[in-house]
This record gives sequence, structure tokens and C-alpha cells, in this order.
Amino acid sequence: MSSKEGFQWTAATGLKSGLPCEGVKLPSKKLPASGRYDVIVIGAGFAGIIASRDLALRGHKVLLLEARDRIGGRAWTSTIDGFPYEIGAAWFHWNQPHMLSQVSRYGLQGELNFSFDLSGGVDKSNLHIEDMPQGEVDTEVSVDEQDSMYEKLGALYFNVDGEMGRKVMPYPALPFHNPEVLEYDNLTAFDRVEQIREDLTDLEANALKSYLLLLSGGTAENTGFLDLLHWWMLCNNQSGTFGSQADAYKLKHGTTTLVRRFLDDGLRSGNLEVLLSHPISSITDEKGQVSVSSNGDTYSAARVISTIPLNVLSTVDFSPPLSPAKKEALAHGHVGLHTKVHFDAMGTDLRTWSGYSYPGHGLLYAYGDETTSRGSTHVVAFGASTNVLEGENNVEKIQKALHHLRPDVNIERILFHDWVKDPYSRGSWCMFSKGFASQYLSTLQEPHGNVWFASADWADGWRGFIDGAIEQGAHVAQEVADSFSQT
Amino acid sequence: MSSKEGFQWTAATGLKSGLPCEGVKLPSKKLPASGRYDVIVIGAGFAGIIASRDLALRGHKVLLLEARDRIGGRAWTSTIDGFPYEIGAAWFHWNQPHMLSQVSRYGLQGELNFSFDLSGGVDKSNLHIEDMPQGEVDTEVSVDEQDSMYEKLGALYFNVDGEMGRKVMPYPALPFHNPEVLEYDNLTAFDRVEQIREDLTDLEANALKSYLLLLSGGTAENTGFLDLLHWWMLCNNQSGTFGSQADAYKLKHGTTTLVRRFLDDGLRSGNLEVLLSHPISSITDEKGQVSVSSNGDTYSAARVISTIPLNVLSTVDFSPPLSPAKKEALAHGHVGLHTKVHFDAMGTDLRTWSGYSYPGHGLLYAYGDETTSRGSTHVVAFGASTNVLEGENNVEKIQKALHHLRPDVNIERILFHDWVKDPYSRGSWCMFSKGFASQYLSTLQEPHGNVWFASADWADGWRGFIDGAIEQGAHVAQEVADSFSQT
Repeated sequence: MSSKEGFQWTAATGLKSGLPCEGVKLPSKKLPASGRYDVIVIGAGFAGIIASRDLALRGHKVLLLEARDRIGGRAWTSTIDGFPYEIGAAWFHWNQPHMLSQVSRYGLQGELNFSFDLSGGVDKSNLHIEDMPQGEVDTEVSVDEQDSMYEKLGALYFNVDGEMGRKVMPYPALPFHNPEVLEYDNLTAFDRVEQIREDLTDLEANALKSYLLLLSGGTAENTGFLDLLHWWMLCNNQSGTFGSQADAYKLKHGTTTLVRRFLDDGLRSGNLEVLLSHPISSITDEKGQVSVSSNGDTYSAARVISTIPLNVLSTVDFSPPLSPAKKEALAHGHVGLHTKVHFDAMGTDLRTWSGYSYPGHGLLYAYGDETTSRGSTHVVAFGASTNVLEGENNVEKIQKALHHLRPDVNIERILFHDWVKDPYSRGSWCMFSKGFASQYLSTLQEPHGNVWFASADWADGWRGFIDGAIEQGAHVAQEVADSFSQT
Repeated sequence: MSSKEGFQWTAATGLKSGLPCEGVKLPSKKLPASGRYDVIVIGAGFAGIIASRDLALRGHKVLLLEARDRIGGRAWTSTIDGFPYEIGAAWFHWNQPHMLSQVSRYGLQGELNFSFDLSGGVDKSNLHIEDMPQGEVDTEVSVDEQDSMYEKLGALYFNVDGEMGRKVMPYPALPFHNPEVLEYDNLTAFDRVEQIREDLTDLEANALKSYLLLLSGGTAENTGFLDLLHWWMLCNNQSGTFGSQADAYKLKHGTTTLVRRFLDDGLRSGNLEVLLSHPISSITDEKGQVSVSSNGDTYSAARVISTIPLNVLSTVDFSPPLSPAKKEALAHGHVGLHTKVHFDAMGTDLRTWSGYSYPGHGLLYAYGDETTSRGSTHVVAFGASTNVLEGENNVEKIQKALHHLRPDVNIERILFHDWVKDPYSRGSWCMFSKGFASQYLSTLQEPHGNVWFASADWADGWRGFIDGAIEQGAHVAQEVADSFSQT
């Protein structure tokens, strides 16, 4: 079974749209009381599925509406020849509390693959910086040496308080616990580079900027500093674990298998009905019932949980209208507009390899991530909104972007999905611009009458991660359950 | 309302047994189908209440039997004059994933008190070492200086692999993920001290030994090294966070309020019945039904979840009998035999104070933890099985033990409970002896026919902590739920 989403290229087939995905096959079982729901959950990503599961298991009748032809939202797996390509969110770490709790509940803690590998391949890391006084500079060092440079830069960059951030953000699960941290929301990521600029060589300053945009997906102008500091603190402000915690481990059988496990558990209750390919156009809350329009039909329930992403929510008509503050937040949106591309590279030369560039030619970063079942190296690459690939119109541009990072790669296969054009995401993982978190985070979390909002995009902890989606899904499900017992 | 458990002393009242506790008041509501249960859960500590809640919310009829006159198990709060004394487990950190997930689900992340305080008081730390070549040595330095010494000792002690433990235990939520770690289970905690002995002064070696026994509650002979390494890794192997993560924050309203919140959520389902003061004598599994004897009555269900602690489980008769491996594990038991004593000390002098001793006079460690509502300093103190206080027979011995650490303390109140004599705990938090984890951890986690076992004592992650109890309760509840849908 395949989703319409995504593109695949091989020399033999050329570029084709659609990718295999286990997340499109669902039991199309109607509830006995179909049409009479306690809760409608909009969006079958991790937030929506956790909320649906929790509410259905506790006896509420739940309708889960998903716009796409598959479950998973911004996390989904396309398994080809037995290899799980993570088209969206991929990585997992045991310092992600909500993810670990769910994984542990189902006994899946052991099902991890290690992403990095320093044991085979060229063991080189390339760095291409174009904006240097002397013109373009290319360096090639060992992966370990490159990592050490980035560790050093991270420790310098994030040490805003002489305590590696622990003073201003002691409690990263509640980032504003110490209000002193607010002053750092007045900085862009690049403002902070300027504060430490005299301690950096030209090469280091540009290498750091490349890394910051890789993390944010944004631009020099719109990338806020606070969200980056927040990531650093979530990774326990340890030099050397920033990278290794955020993207060291993946689930052996893919994120789709995991979210499907949650959904199946919920479906077993007999209280959950799921409709795929049901995008939402409007949400009307009147006389204690909320009506949701989709595909020309109207569904009603006492409560609605919307997990529609930050950059998409403004496309839905609300009656009564959302608060001015919420509208303002949605109009701003977030700046995470990444490109993610998967390459199969012939052989194992790139197993221990990474490449960085700045400003780059569509890809800021790539590295060897696992070996496919066919013995090729899976190379995963990221770009930001500074330099958009639009690979569906120009697959050669994608190939050139990787060759810019490493010329001698023999590309066997390319997989990608355009998360920025995707009408149901309009971006990748959430990263806030300067000032956004302090102004809008709590606004985004507020319910609107009988409509609650749960998304990784406004998580308190690992915002933009699967962990944040679970955090919000579980919390909002509890709030909605509480609201029923109070009435 | 008061529990029969625990003792309180003031000069005015003398020593009296029993302590106030909100955990003794429960709705005594019978289920409509009382007597016909799907699951019997034994033990209303965190593991048992999480398991009961999860199963009751998903529609299973649950009977929760508790031996004590209160809920909470080894975590309970006695609130006196508005101050929450944590008689057992107290501390919480956001790196405890299962605890944080539950706290976040109910929106309680903000309800924290900071335990330490470097802002007021004598700012001294006393260290009394008796076993020195030159006789007893007393030192007094600032709390910061003492902490720095312990940080240095921790970094030296736990750096078994040149990578602060990260190589041998990369994934502390699954401590045996790298089997190379097994060799460290052949060491006692003091064996490891000998390995680094030449890098330590006599004073440092003894200070370290004091700290290790404080953590373990055991003796030089029976304290294993692996569990201590495991704690270190759970605290992200950071010098300076070992102490601050394990005991930095407490819940403002106490652990009893938290566990009560979980229980009340489960009770709302209408599927959960709770009986306090119902100790168990036998568990018989025959013909697909499990019968549990308590107070002369027999209760039956298709499944039983026992949360009876490791050191108590051997007192229950099982039919059919437990496996030889499980019996062997129970006969060994764990070595965590701590004394915990609460003192109210007049004034705020001890707010920034800590004292260590070795071998000590019944208390190895004490420190200022919060200010009571009456403006006194709450001093919490710990001893290990090397030197038992038996304070219920001799309150002066307790007073002397604190005065040994700091002579000038004006003691206004003493609170304690004897966890070692307690027939339902027979110990404090779980710490394994040398070789125990590699030999018995998985054995302890195995179900026995229709009986499952959930306890912090055999958690994979934060073993011996509330976090570990939640880990096990949630996982076993899911396994039991899965077992129903497979039949």
C-alpha cells in the first residue's frame, strides 16, 4: 500500500510520486453508535493518536479525522526493500520523557537502531564555506574532529550564564520556570553569534551559522535564539550530547509502526472510529456541541481536539472566531521550513561521513545514517528555507546539492517529501522566531470554548519532536476527560 | 486523619506513634458487581495505583488491596502545621521520564519546591571521619566546597571507561544494553574505591565511602557497584548533577497528593474498588482464576498484579510455587536498609548546611531541606544498615546522632518511620548487591501464570524511585490489558 505523498527517484524509474507506507491500511470499522461522538480528534499524528487512544480507552466515543491518506502526521515511514526511510521525524532519545514512557509501556525500549557509526567508511567530514574573506573554503577532517569543533562551538554559544544555561533554564520541561530567561527571547540566533564573534575564527563563525540554520530551518533574520537554547538544555547542556541526543537513535521498525501500535491499542476499545482523507474546513461551537465540516459532511461532538499544526491552523474557519492573540500567533507561524532528502549511496564509503555547507546549494548538511538491506549507505540530508530545492520539479538539483557536499557519491535512489508545500504541514518541525515563545506559547495552548488544541508545535518540553506531540496529546486528553466529569 | 505508621517526638508530647496522613481517607465505594473482578492489584503504592488506574480507566473491573491503613507504599506525606514531611520517597527530577510524563499529563509540572538552598544559614558542611590513621578528623568547609569535593570524587569514581560511563552504559533506561557493563556487576562499591584508591587522600576515601553507603543503605560487603553506576548514568553522568538530580526538587503538595490524584482519576471510572488494611497471605492460580487470601476472605480474578516489594514477597504463599530462580532472588533480597529521620531545627541556621560522617553514629548524612511554616529548618537525615538507630526505643539516640553531625542544633520535633522493621517494606529504596542485577533482574520481571509483578524494585530505569514504580505499573498494566485481548 502506498501514500500519494512523497517522491522517489532511481535511474531506472525516474522520478515518481507516492511512497509505500503501512500507515494507509486501517480497519474501516464504524462504531455501533456511529454519528454520536463524545470527542472528535482532528489529525492522526502522534498527538492526535495518543489523545484518541487515551479517550477511547477510558470509554469516550471518539471520531478521529485525518486529512491525509495515512496516519502519522509529520512522522511516517516508507519501508522499501525492508529499509525504513523516515520521511519526517525520525530520532528518539531516552531523555525524551513522553516518548520513553510510551515506548516502555509497550516494552519496545530495546528496538533501537544506532544512527551514527564511526566504524566504517571514509571517516571524513567535509565543510564548504562560501562566504569567507578569501572566497570559498573547503576543509576535510575526520568526523571526530568535526564533531569536536561543533562541541566546542556549542559550549561557547550556549553558555549564556557561565553555567551552560543551567541558571537561566534550569527546568527545560518548563522553559520559563526562571523568568530571567525571557531576555534571551529578544535575540535571534545570529545576534547570539555576534556576542561571541570575537572568540570565533571566520571559518568557525560560518560553520556555526550553518549548524544553526540546519537546526532551525529558518533564515538569519527569523531564527530565534531561545528555541535553540531550549534544545541545548533538553539535551542536558552537555557538550557532545547535543547532536547525539537529538539524532542518535531510531526505532528499528519505524515511527509508523509505533504510532500504529498506539492506534491499534485505542481501536481495541471499540470506542474509536478513524476516517482518513478527511480534511477539515470549519469548526463551529454552538449550544454545547461542536460541528466539524469535512468533505461536505458535518460531524458533531461535545468536545473537539484539534492537532492541526501551527502553520496550517489559520486555514480553518472557526465560529466563534479564535481570539485576536491566537490569530496573531497563527499569522506569525513558525519558521521551521526544512527540506529532508534521503539518498541511497552505493557501497559503504559514506557510512562514517558528514558534510556541512554554508550558505549552501539547497542542502546544509548530510551524513551516513545506517546501511540499507541492499548494502548501500543511507545518507540523510537537510536544507533550510534559505535555499529551497523544489526537487519534484528538478531532481538534478537534488543530486547536485549532495555532490556539492561530496562529489564522489554514486546515488542509487532518492526519496523526499516537500513538507513546506504540504498543505497539512506547511513546514517541518516547529522553530520559533525571536520573541514568539514568550508572547504566544501559552496562547497557543489555551482551549477555545469546547475546542482544545494539542500539537508538538506548542509543547512545553521537546517542542517540534514526537516527544512534544505525545506530551500535548496526553495532557489535552486528560483535560478533556476532566471536563466531562466536571459537567 | 492519621496512619498508625511512624513516630513523632516533641519535648512537650514525648514520643508518640502514628502520623497525620491524607492517604488514609478513601471513598469506601463498592462496585455494583462487587466480588467479580477482572484484575486484583496488590499494593496501593505508585506502581499499584498506576496499574489500577490504567486498567480501570480502560474498562476492567479492578480490586485494589492494600495491607497498610493508607495509600502510597514507600512514598507518603505527613502534613503537620501545613508542612509536608515526606516520610519515604520525596524527590523528583524532570529527567525521570515516567514521573514527568504523569506530572505533565495532570498539568502539575509547576508545583515544585526546591530542596537545597545556598542563600541562608551557616553555609557550612561538616565532615566527621573516625577511621583515620590519626584518629577522628573533623572538617568544616562551605557547602559549595564540600559539594565540589564530592563532584570531583564522583567523576573519578564513575569514570570506569574513560567516557564517564557513557561507553559501558549508554542507555540507562536499559542498563544492560551494552553487555560490556556486566563485568562491573562483579564489583562491590568498595572494590571500586580500591581501584582508584591511589588517587584519593585518606579523608577523600572515607568521605566517598560514607556517600556510597548513604546512597545504598547497605554495608561495605553487600553494596554492589552497578546500581550506583546506574544512578550516575541516569543523572546524565554529569559531575554536579548526581546529587542535584536525585534530590533537588520535591512536589509542593507532597507525594500523597500526587498518588491520590492518580487514584481519584481511576476511581472516577466506576471500575475500581479499594480496600485498605487488607494484607495478603496467599495467592493461588488454578483453572484460569487467581484467588487471593486476605483477612480470612478470598478474592478472585482472572489476573493478579502484585506490587509487593522484593524484600516482602517471600512472605506470601504461592500456589503453584514461584520458580526456583525467583525464590532465590527473593531469598537474596535487596540491601537498601536506610533510616530516614526528619528534624525541625529551631531557626534558619541550618538552611544552608550539610553534615557527613563515617562510619557514623546512626546517621551518615543530614542537610537543611526547606523552611517549615513555623520558620524552623527542616533537616532530613539518613542512616544505613551499618548502624541502626531503632529510634522508637530510644529517641535520645536519634538526637545524639544529629548532634554528632552538628552539636549546636536545637531540635524541636522529630519524625520517622522504621522502614526496615516495617513488615510491608522490610527495607527502604531498592539497591542490589554485587551480581544481583545481572542474575535476577529479568527473573523478577517475569510473570508467573496469571500473576504479574510490578515494583520499583525491579524497574529498568530509576530503580527504587517513584519513577521506577510508575514505569513498572504502566508497563505491567499494558501487558495485562494485552493478555485479555489475546484470550
